[in-house]
Amino acid sequence: MTRYKLTLEYDGGPFVGWQRQDNALSVQQAVEDAVHGFCGERVHVQAAGRTDAGVHAWGQVAHVDIEKDTRPDVVRDALNFHLKPHPVVVVSAETAPADFHARFSASGRRYVYRIVNRRARLALDAGRAWQLSVPLDDAAMAVAARVLVGRHDFTSFRSTACQAASPVKTLDRLDVTRTGDEIRIEAAARSFLHNQVRIMVGTLKLSGEGKWSAADVQAALAARDRERGGPTAPPEGLYLAEVRYDAPSAALDGAQAEDVDDAEA
Amino acid sequence: MTRYKLTLEYDGGPFVGWQRQDNALSVQQAVEDAVHGFCGERVHVQAAGRTDAGVHAWGQVAHVDIEKDTRPDVVRDALNFHLKPHPVVVVSAETAPADFHARFSASGRRYVYRIVNRRARLALDAGRAWQLSVPLDDAAMAVAARVLVGRHDFTSFRSTACQAASPVKTLDRLDVTRTGDEIRIEAAARSFLHNQVRIMVGTLKLSGEGKWSAADVQAALAARDRERGGPTAPPEGLYLAEVRYDAPSAALDGAQAEDVDDAEA
Repeated sequence: MTRYKLTLEYDGGPFVGWQRQDNALSVQQAVEDAVHGFCGERVHVQAAGRTDAGVHAWGQVAHVDIEKDTRPDVVRDALNFHLKPHPVVVVSAETAPADFHARFSASGRRYVYRIVNRRARLALDAGRAWQLSVPLDDAAMAVAARVLVGRHDFTSFRSTACQAASPVKTLDRLDVTRTGDEIRIEAAARSFLHNQVRIMVGTLKLSGEGKWSAADVQAALAARDRERGGPTAPPEGLYLAEVRYDAPSAALDGAQAEDVDDAEA
Repeated sequence: MTRYKLTLEYDGGPFVGWQRQDNALSVQQAVEDAVHGFCGERVHVQAAGRTDAGVHAWGQVAHVDIEKDTRPDVVRDALNFHLKPHPVVVVSAETAPADFHARFSASGRRYVYRIVNRRARLALDAGRAWQLSVPLDDAAMAVAARVLVGRHDFTSFRSTACQAASPVKTLDRLDVTRTGDEIRIEAAARSFLHNQVRIMVGTLKLSGEGKWSAADVQAALAARDRERGGPTAPPEGLYLAEVRYDAPSAALDGAQAEDVDDAEA
């Protein structure tokens, strides 16, 4: 049996999210069905981030154990063949140590949120970005973003359905950059709480509109109350861009478990 | 009557191209129908570049004359409302002088061609780039591209159906840059021959694969024979990125007509 590390790209639009559900197609099920199509094995595929419905990925990472001894590039091509009706592809496949775990071994996750700040709806990027007509002050958004960087209790910035044991996370980076009409918000951390990136983006939007100062964002953070955080930005602008596995590929030990127990955004 | 300059974004996928045809929907017809829906007028919309079927635009420019006196931002919003079923939007609308001509007043056009150089098909960019599995040497492509820059007879690099009076064009820029998996080829000129960008890209692909040296590209150019140029790259990677109107907005005079008589790529 071999463990494979898969790097996946997908359009989240047609899926109910990463995680298997009874009512409709998930990315997880599409990948598991492709593995079955390829080698007849019924497997469980574990991902670094359980992306919500409509959230995209450029660089989701998952692992899977396959009995059939196969070269990684053959696994990649075979899975891509069987994934064909769906907008999911295996960008790369590598063999991994038996203790590699896509979710628990991850040392960093990077998400990108795309806003297109213009009056016209999106023709080429429909479903791939959040279109906002009101002119946003990206400099003000960048100032407000700096308030959130660091180790904080992010209760005001997580879904009330979030199942993480602790609301304390360390946000390494929250950068706001504009290129023409497009504002990109880049968030990096070891892990995120459920909806954390989308609530941070919804909050920064208020700063961009001039409705919330950086002090208001600071007050929302200090309140530790979801009702004091901003609204949740829609899923179609969010991309899981990259998952990092720095030092040891083995699952991190118990002392660090608090930081890795959730990876939804 | 007011002349409006419209900047358009569209996904070329579902269209037969810019130009009106009897058999299927063109971008031109979608825009003309939207004008009719908005003000009841049957108009002719002129574009800077008659993009082919499947070719996209970030910044196509068109002009149209409308009797109904309307503020440009209202024209933009009204056309976007009536364009709604289609992946075409008016990014901006401005009033223009009566002698402004989207095609004949243009002083420069810029096209971008996107190649994604990887084994996996495209999940997020399906229909929006040319996916090529063979590893391409972008440095070799950049060297070959320099051969084509300047004033040349581009007979080897135009469609045999091209109706331009002269095959002589001045290519101002042909840049090849790679960011990760993506290779972008950027072409700038006052105007282009029919399929010129796509044939240049198809030729640079041969250089990237190591099949054609820069000297081979030079020989193809010197041959002035379409059969000696490379193949035509598929339309889905091509974007009309920008049209420039530098000095006088009026139509250029006859002396320059050779350079503006065609704007297809």
